[in-house]
Amino acid sequence: MKIITISREFGSGGRELGKLIADALGFDYYDREIITAIAKNQELEEEFVANMMDRDLWKTIPLKFNHSFDNVNTAEITQQDLLKEEERVLGEIAAKGRDCVIVGRNADYRLKDYHPFRIFVCADLDARIDRCLLHEETGGADTIKKIAKNIQKIDKTRARNTSIVTGIEWGDRSNYHLTVNTTDWELDVMAPVVANVALRWFESHGI
Amino acid sequence: MKIITISREFGSGGRELGKLIADALGFDYYDREIITAIAKNQELEEEFVANMMDRDLWKTIPLKFNHSFDNVNTAEITQQDLLKEEERVLGEIAAKGRDCVIVGRNADYRLKDYHPFRIFVCADLDARIDRCLLHEETGGADTIKKIAKNIQKIDKTRARNTSIVTGIEWGDRSNYHLTVNTTDWELDVMAPVVANVALRWFESHGI
Repeated sequence: MKIITISREFGSGGRELGKLIADALGFDYYDREIITAIAKNQELEEEFVANMMDRDLWKTIPLKFNHSFDNVNTAEITQQDLLKEEERVLGEIAAKGRDCVIVGRNADYRLKDYHPFRIFVCADLDARIDRCLLHEETGGADTIKKIAKNIQKIDKTRARNTSIVTGIEWGDRSNYHLTVNTTDWELDVMAPVVANVALRWFESHGI
Repeated sequence: MKIITISREFGSGGRELGKLIADALGFDYYDREIITAIAKNQELEEEFVANMMDRDLWKTIPLKFNHSFDNVNTAEITQQDLLKEEERVLGEIAAKGRDCVIVGRNADYRLKDYHPFRIFVCADLDARIDRCLLHEETGGADTIKKIAKNIQKIDKTRARNTSIVTGIEWGDRSNYHLTVNTTDWELDVMAPVVANVALRWFESHGI
């Protein structure tokens, strides 16, 4: 089974590149589907799960050594519960044994035993702002400066959460087979050749 | 004219990958050749030039505001002189108008007007130690610990010199089209597919 994982800077086009790679190779594709599965299993609203997963873990981890267990409201769903559920859903995806592309969710780390080909996608801030405007993913920001700030905040949270969940540094080149910069080329041009690098890697490792 | 530049961590195999890419594409290849040309033009020993170019620029920049010009020994060749000569040699290579791969020498920055495809090559420290042992490039170090220290020292100097010469951060993913990690695959497997990514990029940019 071939698994390609995509980690990415916000607005870099990592999600679209992942979809294009999956299409080029005829692989399954997982992105929002993981949130949908978690929401369904936990009988929660998808939007609630999505928002909760994107929160800054550092601020939401219960400081257990400061609390007696009696003080912890066990009926309340925490971000940690959802992270465990996320891990379970990723395990289910892998258990299917089908070739796939998975975007985000620290799948590179969580499915490391399946030897995924790990891609990190980045782009210049200006290119990322343009892409956010194009896709109307500005998080309500109405000026370029605010959009930039929003992008940087999201990436900071991603970096921090990855570090807490996996113990590895988000975006550090040593954690990925390939880091691709989407700044100055079209994703549909890039996708087949990057897919080809991944295929060749799998082939040379007998995967 | 298609120029591919390779920047790399010491021991990552960037030089070999560059040669393999050049061979795969039938491109000219420049690496040590640049040092040879500088030495020839300046009527200096090649080894002297190589050593001088690898020195820590931070420590060798003359603090001119502390010196009257009378105190500067103009007959002495400085690292800065060699850097200027290096820039001239790179300009000559580009002026030939032939497709080529250039390893190191901040060619990505210096030839930026020629729109090079910029690759950064990295690898885990263990893999780099192994490669140094294989190629007997241990810088006289006789223990793994010393080899590791040597690698880190060389990279630190490279990072610092790049920052001084170009003002950009060595190894920062935003400065390269592609960052490839050679840790767990064979360079001869990797070279043709990476070359193919570069070719496709040139094609899509009408280069």
